[in-house]
Amino acid sequence: MTILGIDTSSAACSCALLKDDKLLGETLVNVGLTHSETIMPAVSALLEREGLAPKDVDVFAVAAGPGSFTGVRIGVCAVKALAEACKKPCARVDALQAIAEGSAYEGLICPILDARRDQVYTALFRRRHTVLTRVREDAALSLDELIEALRDAPEVYFTGDGLNSYEARILAAMGDRALFAPAHIRVLRASALCRAAQADPACWMSADRLTPFYLRLPQAERERNARLAAKP
Amino acid sequence: MTILGIDTSSAACSCALLKDDKLLGETLVNVGLTHSETIMPAVSALLEREGLAPKDVDVFAVAAGPGSFTGVRIGVCAVKALAEACKKPCARVDALQAIAEGSAYEGLICPILDARRDQVYTALFRRRHTVLTRVREDAALSLDELIEALRDAPEVYFTGDGLNSYEARILAAMGDRALFAPAHIRVLRASALCRAAQADPACWMSADRLTPFYLRLPQAERERNARLAAKP
Repeated sequence: MTILGIDTSSAACSCALLKDDKLLGETLVNVGLTHSETIMPAVSALLEREGLAPKDVDVFAVAAGPGSFTGVRIGVCAVKALAEACKKPCARVDALQAIAEGSAYEGLICPILDARRDQVYTALFRRRHTVLTRVREDAALSLDELIEALRDAPEVYFTGDGLNSYEARILAAMGDRALFAPAHIRVLRASALCRAAQADPACWMSADRLTPFYLRLPQAERERNARLAAKP
Repeated sequence: MTILGIDTSSAACSCALLKDDKLLGETLVNVGLTHSETIMPAVSALLEREGLAPKDVDVFAVAAGPGSFTGVRIGVCAVKALAEACKKPCARVDALQAIAEGSAYEGLICPILDARRDQVYTALFRRRHTVLTRVREDAALSLDELIEALRDAPEVYFTGDGLNSYEARILAAMGDRALFAPAHIRVLRASALCRAAQADPACWMSADRLTPFYLRLPQAERERNARLAAKP
């Protein structure tokens, strides 16, 4: 089974091809270029290198959020279009789960993404004997709320590019109980997303059912709701 | 500090750019194309996407072996040429260490590469609080010798693309004491190689001192030595 994974949900974007137990290839770009311009040429080049066409792909997987509103929509639209054109299923993968899949740590894994407004998008997973299971649902939390929620955990492995902003504050609060993924592991990789899609056919669906996954309303909608609520 | 990593030492080949604590990009190709044709166009495209030229790189890192004889030479030659042209240092990284750097597992990590002739190239590392240290030197061992050497280890995380050939035999011999890296983690990644180079300036050297790292003589030399030894 061949899975094509696409991620444009955060600062980096990437695409990968996983065929059964072999990672055929992966491209990761993390330089702040516009994902909408970067991702499809990267996908085309990836397929071409492998001598494959979109019709040879069995499942199109995407990190459907949480993440950047625009970024998530770019990835979801690209995958919807490819799957619809090829009449193949999509796999809707949680971005935080895909980040956790990128680390081989055994124990509690806490992925964090910078959600702006002094919040992080986060969740909690546990890996035991290489199998990842979810401990807490995705949430948008302040860093203080997150640290409080992890008060009783003996050791937590933090990963995700939210570390770029928050590693120092977590270290100050948790000391030796906190471990931090290095740069090459904390980044969301499309290959980890393919792995998550492969492990869980429950996340497969037809292209028309694929929707982004948001933890908060976009800023424009929040402001509109606030205006409406303020009206007499 | 910007590190360009190149790996062509085994079936996959990859290149990556690591700038301080940020992975700028990575390309991995794992489809049996000729590395000598694949790697330099991939490096050029990587640099171009980041808006960088070779002269902007501070250190050129390579997986100098163990691995495929021809593959190791291709990577070493490419890095020698780039470093010499730009008058910058090379970093000579052990391929098995780079594979171990790709896994975040805490505990004993055993990377294995298929060395043909019923042997594996292997070593042993321990990660404690995210820091990787070497436990055993690189060696070419039969699988039985490797399993015997790990007899007293409570739990070992196996990684590296040697698992493609040997996972079932290790599982049969070690049972629950063996954990196995999935496809997207077991592959040697140039980003992990950059990380190893960043962590250990002792492996930096001038281009003229960079040499491949072999655990066995090439087949042609072994056969020549056998012929010479057999002469009366």
